Amino acid sequence: MADVARHAGVSIATVSRALRDAAVAPATRERVLRSARELEYVTSPAGSGLSSGRTKTVALVVPFAARWFFSEVIVGAETALREAGLDMLLYNIGRTDRERFFATLPLRRRVDAAIVVASSLTPDQQHQLRSLGIPLSLLGSRIEGFPSVRIDDEHAAATAGRHLVGLGHRRVAMICGDPSNPVGTATTARRRAGFTTAIEAAGICGPEVVEEEWGITGGGRAMGRILGQADLPTAIFAESDEMAFGAMHTLRRAGIGVPDRISVVGVDDHELAMALELTTVAQPVKEQGAAAARALLHQLTDSIPPSNYDRVLPTRLVVRRSSAPPPP
Amino acid sequence: MADVARHAGVSIATVSRALRDAAVAPATRERVLRSARELEYVTSPAGSGLSSGRTKTVALVVPFAARWFFSEVIVGAETALREAGLDMLLYNIGRTDRERFFATLPLRRRVDAAIVVASSLTPDQQHQLRSLGIPLSLLGSRIEGFPSVRIDDEHAAATAGRHLVGLGHRRVAMICGDPSNPVGTATTARRRAGFTTAIEAAGICGPEVVEEEWGITGGGRAMGRILGQADLPTAIFAESDEMAFGAMHTLRRAGIGVPDRISVVGVDDHELAMALELTTVAQPVKEQGAAAARALLHQLTDSIPPSNYDRVLPTRLVVRRSSAPPPP
Repeated sequence: MADVARHAGVSIATVSRALRDAAVAPATRERVLRSARELEYVTSPAGSGLSSGRTKTVALVVPFAARWFFSEVIVGAETALREAGLDMLLYNIGRTDRERFFATLPLRRRVDAAIVVASSLTPDQQHQLRSLGIPLSLLGSRIEGFPSVRIDDEHAAATAGRHLVGLGHRRVAMICGDPSNPVGTATTARRRAGFTTAIEAAGICGPEVVEEEWGITGGGRAMGRILGQADLPTAIFAESDEMAFGAMHTLRRAGIGVPDRISVVGVDDHELAMALELTTVAQPVKEQGAAAARALLHQLTDSIPPSNYDRVLPTRLVVRRSSAPPPP
Repeated sequence: MADVARHAGVSIATVSRALRDAAVAPATRERVLRSARELEYVTSPAGSGLSSGRTKTVALVVPFAARWFFSEVIVGAETALREAGLDMLLYNIGRTDRERFFATLPLRRRVDAAIVVASSLTPDQQHQLRSLGIPLSLLGSRIEGFPSVRIDDEHAAATAGRHLVGLGHRRVAMICGDPSNPVGTATTARRRAGFTTAIEAAGICGPEVVEEEWGITGGGRAMGRILGQADLPTAIFAESDEMAFGAMHTLRRAGIGVPDRISVVGVDDHELAMALELTTVAQPVKEQGAAAARALLHQLTDSIPPSNYDRVLPTRLVVRRSSAPPPP
């Protein structure tokens, strides 16, 4: 901190105030932050730099802790936090507990920082989170003013679309989670947009989109609805591997060969995708949890506001047996 | 508390001391506890009864948070604790972090109580946990002196064995997790013993047991080792559904029909067991998490030591397409 003070030509107390976002003239604050950035000023969480670190605890707020994606995020975040000497409080707020959580904010004064995972936040909810006055990071979504870690959902879905078009498919359908669910609808919308754009770019009619409750059972039900139609698609894109597993189960029961008659592609690379031979767009999930934790540690230790911090981790197509050219 | 005092014929202060396990003559303490039990004395955690509840936080210690079983436990415990107004700190300590965790006990003075899930604890580790001086409950295992919530692993495995014997199988093998893993070996041993007993009770030679790393990949590898032998079994019992999924994957790739040539049975009723048509011995997992949380709440609120509290939740056979009579 002394180095930063010297570099910026201010007192150590001013540096401390500026880094804490306390009362300092804007120009002075700018100068301190610039110096801190130039000197790559970072303190260790164990050191005195963790001025805001009173509870040594970080909250992880997830909507459905038992789903594969969230359980991987939990492991990634918990491991990174523990390595930094911080504990993790887990708040599992599904559909029904959401309102109560935002109304009461039980994490208030209990944590130094929070990671909020894969949620569509209303402006009110965003305001409530900001009112906590602690560093926050979002995982799986992007909202102006919140540091975030995520994948590019549109790009991931477009990758799946281009793979199917490249194989020669011309009639494709997409299986999505329930849009009435207030959690994760933004993710669904982005994947839907990305897939549709890729399909239409190939001069094909936009995909039929079937919405059912998110998950294995919902995916199976959506596939059943598609099979009830006169004109079957030759390929299915599911917004998650779990919905794809449900779709494959319905196809197996219906005696419809995958990929001989219908190809199936998901998103995730779920731990069972390989065993089920599912072609999918893999996303690094533990890594997103760890990156979101590190984004918070950075805020906690050097107090430099990560202006528009938005880390986008790469996805990649993993081709397995569930996708092939359409039947002749 | 006044009712208990009246019933036991002692002062309220004595009741309070007896319930807190503080200095009280043994006979008096016995009388107070008997009265408390007879009156079904329970205080709400929100009330003053939560005398030991200073942090309003409970630790959940799991070995592998991302595995299906543990992610379900997390949800069950977190939900029950949150309903009681308590937060949950999650400690995910796998193979490598285990020693460090028990050496440093980071949860010390951070929580009012702790749930320790599915671990084989050495006498030293048991001693260290007791040294925390807080209510503890075990989930998935039973150790003298610790309240526990679990299933009867031997019975669950014996159920699978009797199902296969009943179908007419005479050559059976079992797939287990790696015994060098210090976590969960007690579970493996109990399931192995239960299955073996059921098989031998039918007058059949004890099953061949193949050990590989716990999980889908390990299950697949174990099946590969079995397929390399001259004399194939007609049925496989896997100690978990995830190991069974791996085995089924290897069988599919090898072109060996399930159940036409080999039947497969697991334990769990994993969320994907239905989609994969796996016959399994279902265990209630979220319920075990919730029951372990309630066992702690009970200790936190009324301070009555749950002498040998050992709640065993029921399991049941779920027959699906992966099991059938052996080929003629």
